[in-house]
Amino acid sequence: MSFDEIIDRRGTHCVKWDMMEPIYKVPAEDGLAMWVADMDFPAPDCVQRAVRDMADHGIYGYFGDDGAYKSAIVSWMETRHGWTVNPAHIFTTHGLVNGTAMCVDAFTEPGDGIVLFTPVYHAFARVIKAADRQVVECEMPVVDGRYALDLEAWDAQMTGSEKMLVLCSPHNPGGRVWTRAELEAVADFARRHDLILVSDEIHHDLVFPGGTHVPMANIEGIEDRLVMMTATTKTFNIAGSHIGNVVISDPELHKRFATRMAALGLSPNSFGLHMATAAYSPEGADWVDDLMTYLEGNRAVFDAGVNAIPGLRSMPLEATYLSWVDFSGTGMERPEFTHRVEQEAKIAVNHGPTFGKGGETFLRFNIATQRARVEEAVERMQRAFADLQ
Amino acid sequence: MSFDEIIDRRGTHCVKWDMMEPIYKVPAEDGLAMWVADMDFPAPDCVQRAVRDMADHGIYGYFGDDGAYKSAIVSWMETRHGWTVNPAHIFTTHGLVNGTAMCVDAFTEPGDGIVLFTPVYHAFARVIKAADRQVVECEMPVVDGRYALDLEAWDAQMTGSEKMLVLCSPHNPGGRVWTRAELEAVADFARRHDLILVSDEIHHDLVFPGGTHVPMANIEGIEDRLVMMTATTKTFNIAGSHIGNVVISDPELHKRFATRMAALGLSPNSFGLHMATAAYSPEGADWVDDLMTYLEGNRAVFDAGVNAIPGLRSMPLEATYLSWVDFSGTGMERPEFTHRVEQEAKIAVNHGPTFGKGGETFLRFNIATQRARVEEAVERMQRAFADLQ
Repeated sequence: MSFDEIIDRRGTHCVKWDMMEPIYKVPAEDGLAMWVADMDFPAPDCVQRAVRDMADHGIYGYFGDDGAYKSAIVSWMETRHGWTVNPAHIFTTHGLVNGTAMCVDAFTEPGDGIVLFTPVYHAFARVIKAADRQVVECEMPVVDGRYALDLEAWDAQMTGSEKMLVLCSPHNPGGRVWTRAELEAVADFARRHDLILVSDEIHHDLVFPGGTHVPMANIEGIEDRLVMMTATTKTFNIAGSHIGNVVISDPELHKRFATRMAALGLSPNSFGLHMATAAYSPEGADWVDDLMTYLEGNRAVFDAGVNAIPGLRSMPLEATYLSWVDFSGTGMERPEFTHRVEQEAKIAVNHGPTFGKGGETFLRFNIATQRARVEEAVERMQRAFADLQ
Repeated sequence: MSFDEIIDRRGTHCVKWDMMEPIYKVPAEDGLAMWVADMDFPAPDCVQRAVRDMADHGIYGYFGDDGAYKSAIVSWMETRHGWTVNPAHIFTTHGLVNGTAMCVDAFTEPGDGIVLFTPVYHAFARVIKAADRQVVECEMPVVDGRYALDLEAWDAQMTGSEKMLVLCSPHNPGGRVWTRAELEAVADFARRHDLILVSDEIHHDLVFPGGTHVPMANIEGIEDRLVMMTATTKTFNIAGSHIGNVVISDPELHKRFATRMAALGLSPNSFGLHMATAAYSPEGADWVDDLMTYLEGNRAVFDAGVNAIPGLRSMPLEATYLSWVDFSGTGMERPEFTHRVEQEAKIAVNHGPTFGKGGETFLRFNIATQRARVEEAVERMQRAFADLQ
């Protein structure tokens, strides 16, 4: 397959394209869907074969024996991330929103504070609030155009009621790949404030050439309070399969999580298990490498085009396909720049404030689509903000 | 397709066939898997097309708009069960073990008693215990060879600490289709003891010709404490898709359940949604009718063969494909008759005690397989117990 091939996702119950008009009033006929974090590319052939094999067999009964599935995870983490996983430490959740929510449920109590470095993936705050816990927003400063950590300032913010920190690594939005030194500092912060550290590393495979992701599990002295979360869903574009890996090596935390999984009667669907097993393979690895090369091209087109518009600034992505564009330089109010993007350029995007403090002047653009569409988006943006040029 | 066609499920990560040897020591080569409650038949063509359409599209992203899915449920319940469902009342859970567990989680507290009419589906007790609630077993008497309710005796058992009743309707195991009068009496019992009534009706489509299932939702005066659970997974043999319907009309109970769903970050996988939507159709309905005719033939062969063995008695099924065989008439201890079935007849079955009080002398046989295999099972049983004849 070619990443350039346009595939029409409309009419397939795809939330990104089919709900764009109901939610954003961006017309289905000629709108561009750049919001929800999935890609407009088919999954790799190894995954397609797994689905076709299931269809050819035709019986979709109860799944048994996740040994091959767990081995595939172990092998992937070792090979791609230099992280040695004990298969007995792996839980399979219904994706990582469920994984995050299960951590909140298993390890905290109503009223507890849960720390987020904002702006950050909006679903974290959503499940924290839904569980009647408190979101503690630590706003990240922008240093040299990228997000940074300000742990000293955040130390002063802690009250003692905080029980957990949910880290996004690599970071969404903004696309930071945290350095080893930064991760060590985060681990120190978690220890200092006695926080369980949930490290959501769902974007760990989507690092642009030249960068290196460091798993939090490879930071020393954090394993007794660490929950690692990874998934095939973002990497291989199979979010619909709703499957995620939660890896916990600490025996006490592992037991508490296992108890909640059992009490909630959660077990994974067979499609996700078959697809993930097929994805975590040498063939899948080659596909991801090709994908990142293609996305690197998209990033270049998008950043060049958007940054040419006076007042707009796209944060340079080190990872993820989620471009984070600051409109503060336009001097426009949020309704004005949002209107221009959605109603004039007809592009559906994620709104900055949903990501928490610091997101107010931003919009998030999903650039994991065909190059031609990225070019079209850039042209539309340039027209919509032509008066600034 | 023909229900008679033998399809080898071994080596497909099918728990029923692939875990038979590790769990029961019933050899994979020539054992017969009659335990786990799924069928050895492919799903109907309408479901197969739904999976193939997904594979042909090749992009497995986030699902959007479950309107068609909910409409399909509403239409099925109206047409097949005379039950009018408001689509706004429907939750989609990860199957009904998760659905049951979510009810336990949302509506009860640790230590609360949860009533089961035993013997009953073993996963109920499993999730209740895992959630640190108390299982309150009300043992059903066998009257005229079938299970009956003894609500007066159970009234005397109640202590006031019971908060919920999980009913299995039609009943698994034993295959009772509860009459309207029985369901009214159960509703009265729930009201009398102030219990939330969770009615697991997952087998409601699997009623043999001549019988009629009455949805608990059609019993008057119970709606303010009622949770209805149904699914496509058992009916259409798509358990691997892990999708279930939890329908709650009472606003207060609905809100509590919704709050827990949100707090646990639960949303359904796209395979289950597409497959269930396709299944609940006129074509799906015709398939179920054909299925029940076929299973009626299996039931006749199985019952005739097993009941011909002195001391064995198969409970006459009104619904389900799960034959419940009493070995008490053999005078054998449980290890003896179990050994003969598993190691001599080489048939993997579910053990009675896991279903709770009253199950001690029983084994459960899944007869939803090709007729030739049912005949083979009967012959093996007759040989294994030949000394009794």
